[in-house]
Amino acid sequence: MVSEALRDVLDGRWVAIRRAVREELGAEFVAVPGETGDEARERISRLIRKLPTDVGVASAFPAGHGGSGDQGGSVVAAEMLAYLDLSLMVKAGVQWGLFGGAVVALGNERQHAAYLKDIIDTEILGCFAMTETGHGSDVQQLRTTCVYDPATQTFDLHTPHEAARKDYIGNAARDGRMAVVFAQLITGGKSRGVHAWLVPIRDGNGDPMPGVTLGDAGPKAGLLGVDNGRISFDHVSVPRDMLLDRYGQVAEDGTYSSPIENDTRRFFTMLGTLVRGRVTVGGAASAATREALTIAVRYGETRRQFTAPGAEREIALNDYLAHQRKLLPALATSYAYAFAQEELVGTLADVQGGSGPADEHQQRELESRAAGLKAMQTWHATHTIQMCREACGGAGYLAENRLPGLKADTDVFTTFEGDNTVLLQLVAKGLLTGYRDAFGSLDGWGRATFVAEQVREMVLERTAARALIQRLVSAVPGRGEEVAVTDRGWHLTMFEDREKHVLEGAIRRLRSGAATKKDRPFEIFNDVQDHVLKTATAHIDRITLEAFVAGIERAPGTAEKALLNKLCDLYALTVIEADKGWFLEHGRLTPARSKAVTAVVNDLLRELRPSMRTLVDAFAIPEEWLNCAILREEPDRQDVMAAHDAGA
Amino acid sequence: MVSEALRDVLDGRWVAIRRAVREELGAEFVAVPGETGDEARERISRLIRKLPTDVGVASAFPAGHGGSGDQGGSVVAAEMLAYLDLSLMVKAGVQWGLFGGAVVALGNERQHAAYLKDIIDTEILGCFAMTETGHGSDVQQLRTTCVYDPATQTFDLHTPHEAARKDYIGNAARDGRMAVVFAQLITGGKSRGVHAWLVPIRDGNGDPMPGVTLGDAGPKAGLLGVDNGRISFDHVSVPRDMLLDRYGQVAEDGTYSSPIENDTRRFFTMLGTLVRGRVTVGGAASAATREALTIAVRYGETRRQFTAPGAEREIALNDYLAHQRKLLPALATSYAYAFAQEELVGTLADVQGGSGPADEHQQRELESRAAGLKAMQTWHATHTIQMCREACGGAGYLAENRLPGLKADTDVFTTFEGDNTVLLQLVAKGLLTGYRDAFGSLDGWGRATFVAEQVREMVLERTAARALIQRLVSAVPGRGEEVAVTDRGWHLTMFEDREKHVLEGAIRRLRSGAATKKDRPFEIFNDVQDHVLKTATAHIDRITLEAFVAGIERAPGTAEKALLNKLCDLYALTVIEADKGWFLEHGRLTPARSKAVTAVVNDLLRELRPSMRTLVDAFAIPEEWLNCAILREEPDRQDVMAAHDAGA
Repeated sequence: MVSEALRDVLDGRWVAIRRAVREELGAEFVAVPGETGDEARERISRLIRKLPTDVGVASAFPAGHGGSGDQGGSVVAAEMLAYLDLSLMVKAGVQWGLFGGAVVALGNERQHAAYLKDIIDTEILGCFAMTETGHGSDVQQLRTTCVYDPATQTFDLHTPHEAARKDYIGNAARDGRMAVVFAQLITGGKSRGVHAWLVPIRDGNGDPMPGVTLGDAGPKAGLLGVDNGRISFDHVSVPRDMLLDRYGQVAEDGTYSSPIENDTRRFFTMLGTLVRGRVTVGGAASAATREALTIAVRYGETRRQFTAPGAEREIALNDYLAHQRKLLPALATSYAYAFAQEELVGTLADVQGGSGPADEHQQRELESRAAGLKAMQTWHATHTIQMCREACGGAGYLAENRLPGLKADTDVFTTFEGDNTVLLQLVAKGLLTGYRDAFGSLDGWGRATFVAEQVREMVLERTAARALIQRLVSAVPGRGEEVAVTDRGWHLTMFEDREKHVLEGAIRRLRSGAATKKDRPFEIFNDVQDHVLKTATAHIDRITLEAFVAGIERAPGTAEKALLNKLCDLYALTVIEADKGWFLEHGRLTPARSKAVTAVVNDLLRELRPSMRTLVDAFAIPEEWLNCAILREEPDRQDVMAAHDAGA
Repeated sequence: MVSEALRDVLDGRWVAIRRAVREELGAEFVAVPGETGDEARERISRLIRKLPTDVGVASAFPAGHGGSGDQGGSVVAAEMLAYLDLSLMVKAGVQWGLFGGAVVALGNERQHAAYLKDIIDTEILGCFAMTETGHGSDVQQLRTTCVYDPATQTFDLHTPHEAARKDYIGNAARDGRMAVVFAQLITGGKSRGVHAWLVPIRDGNGDPMPGVTLGDAGPKAGLLGVDNGRISFDHVSVPRDMLLDRYGQVAEDGTYSSPIENDTRRFFTMLGTLVRGRVTVGGAASAATREALTIAVRYGETRRQFTAPGAEREIALNDYLAHQRKLLPALATSYAYAFAQEELVGTLADVQGGSGPADEHQQRELESRAAGLKAMQTWHATHTIQMCREACGGAGYLAENRLPGLKADTDVFTTFEGDNTVLLQLVAKGLLTGYRDAFGSLDGWGRATFVAEQVREMVLERTAARALIQRLVSAVPGRGEEVAVTDRGWHLTMFEDREKHVLEGAIRRLRSGAATKKDRPFEIFNDVQDHVLKTATAHIDRITLEAFVAGIERAPGTAEKALLNKLCDLYALTVIEADKGWFLEHGRLTPARSKAVTAVVNDLLRELRPSMRTLVDAFAIPEEWLNCAILREEPDRQDVMAAHDAGA
């Protein structure tokens, strides 16, 4: 069957983990609609302790400490959990990804030996205490302090004011026993920038440790099963050996040393080792999106409304062009992101999977793509799940049909693990500086303006299937009318050309701003912020299309290839159509060709209409996981009604 | 103060009701974040009985029966309740709008005398039982039957199968004592189309009446305080005098008579009298949007993140161009819809406020605008509240900051009281047929294709401030470059021209489809559905801009006029910018002018930046109603942090 062949293509490199999760996790792990907050927290707290670790959730831990050193596997496992219950996925992500991952990445061998086993086994549940009430995006400016005192050989961890309290911290309100706490290290009277400590926050009875104040973030829009909370420290004494000191050591006498001289560079190197969180969020958002699309597409196959003149049965929603216009481009985009995510996870595994330090260029490239794809996938999730909700009408508003949960749970994904707009700035900055000296990714507007002046000649770096893409691009006969609107080389050229032109334009505008507004660095950048952000989206669109093109090559047969090619046409052309204003403004489309793009999109919708069900079946979400009332009832109801009407 | 002058402009014709609600309803009526479903239902059930009726909620009832016959006042009162608690607004809308409104509009004088007082006083809480599980949009095809038997002089009300059960019905799960039930009337063995009956569903003890099965729709995404449920009837006997018989009477012997011969026409006339529900939903959605914008704009004034090189304080979010790009166009659009809604409510009051039947042309026009503005305002709400949530970061995800509730509660507005896509079809159909014989608004695709062939020469009917708009349009020197991008006449011309051209194109395509696909009427329409829907949005955009232009005239002083003019520039230009692809395709913008539009939009953002706070303060939402934690805490936190940093 085509849907099974497509499933195998989508399952990709971590097929074993995907299959294991599908087989091992049943109804017990599926989200329960309509729970109270307390019920949800209790259930998720119980389930996280019951999750079998052989489904990959702990695979990123070092081979010697209960894992297999496979970063990719842990991302894929989390993505699979997202189909089941997003609270469970986030709770698992906090425990094994953020908390455990920070101990792995920032701790030393002794700390690994002391804690990792208990972390994997959920003997110790923990927090990743970075964000503060006053600083979310600009984490380099955290206000919590941790001052070393050689006399006692302890650190004094302190929250100086309310804005410095740790906020929105998963596992803090209820279950967390320890926390990785990020704070400004001060030793020898000098600030050394943000570092992390492993700090007990609750005792064995679940009561706060002395000096630690724990609060509840209170009811949230979604993710009810995650106990987000607040943590404040009142001069808490932390032993010297609890500093996670891989990137900065404090000797007994307070002497500070680090393999990385520059504070900013060190901080972003530390953050860079934690990039997996972002990759995980993007993947989970896309899984939730595929689940919503599965529900809406299947509902649209059986739900009928309005009768055409002369017809007997009412018309299925999926037969309406307006309905196809909603669902099919979103489906095509979801395939595109599935391929782009698979490639990103592969890069993560390859770059961070070695024993030595990651190659710096590759690491920066990885961080940029992780940031960009996280932003694009989470926005796609927000828009698409909302659209699916509406496509199911009133039924989509009922919790029993899963869409409200998918929507509410993923909503925060656009602003956590990095606010999307800030992440796109990070991507843009990488592009603007040609990945050179601007390392220091989240430090605001100022610096990049000056670096932009030295930007090198832009050569876009191709990602997947380089040779194939080069061949397709080279085969385009030239600009304009003579090439078919469905020519893949033309799509690739359009995407590349837009990225290059937008980027060069941004650089030109920054330079001209820098020349006239030397004393107002914020204005230089702020005046073109919208243009700068567009460089990022154009870039991510291009690498997404390239990943789709490469993904099609992996399809086993001509039927699957043909279907994926049509879907890729739809993805490429709806991206072009959505930005046709830009392409027309810049002479990349004539008005006639622009109209032809819209006409061909509508043709593609008609051609793909019969494959809608196949395309969602290929996501291979077990029926038990969908747990959606309208999918169980609707066919029956429609048949009963049709039979009744026929008899009446 | 400018904000107070603007408030008075926005308060408009029903200023007295707005002021009364602001003064009389305090903290007790404000939404409580984080409640369970049961708590919310209990609270709302209590509050609806405590709502003082002198704040306008019952003003649409006839003067002789406890109201003042003021349809507009009741819409405005509901809009004000939307600021407080959307569950309360919807519960009130179900009780006094849908249920009570149906008894008023469809019932006779005897029924008015018997029930209206108890309905106003909440002695009888009631349901509007129209939607069925199987039919939401296509309500003419309801499957519930009500068969008259002359022998017993009763009707037999029956649910033939599960898809015919009444679904999503407010007040059904818990509080409803009676219901207005819509069903197919059958008398003398002949079907007479959909009619409505007043039917007791619960006895004095709250138990279901014999033959009535009541269910709970279960947990929903939002509106937790509204007890939506399901109702089925097992051959329930309904006395003859419970038929709401204004538009169709059944004599003792079963003889049917009606002032309107045609079944379809009668049905849509009946529906037309209930148009107020749609007007109310659009207004409430916009109120929730203004509340979300108030929160996001005020947070963006005090929340600071990232420091520019050489600067001391961090930068306020509202100073970032990207943040302005999110908030300000949404704010401008919200002003535009506030003016359009005020005009629509005025039309409703004027058209339906007389003692005799409404003028047919005016009534159709009213229904079309109610449908279109409901769709556009509710989508604007969904997009804007989501954007405000993101603009507040993690804080926006906490229930204590109101945005999750505003989002979840308004979410269903895009599909209830008419699915937005279906509503836009209704608008388009009105435009296509020149409001002629196509009356029969929601009956699917088929018919209009044939009517379109007879479409008259298009003359766009101007709405508000006709003379002023004509003067502005006439003053435009000609197409193209010579007129300023901020020229109001040019904006009006662009909006009008787009509407006319899109409409004429749709007609041309329908005609050509009709010529070649005579035997496939569904295809004729479906092939151009996207084009047809665009005629509706272009139309509503145009009447919205005209309402904004007319609204500016009502501003008292030059300062307010100047501010509103700038905001109207931003509204008009962001609409043009969002659709620049179309304008470029059709030669209405040159590439250079299209780029100029974007540049001027950015200029306007900078110019409007200092007025952001003023613009939301003019919404005049009492501080007590906002009840938003970040608005209470944030300024303090920022000051403490700044003071601390300065001292450190």
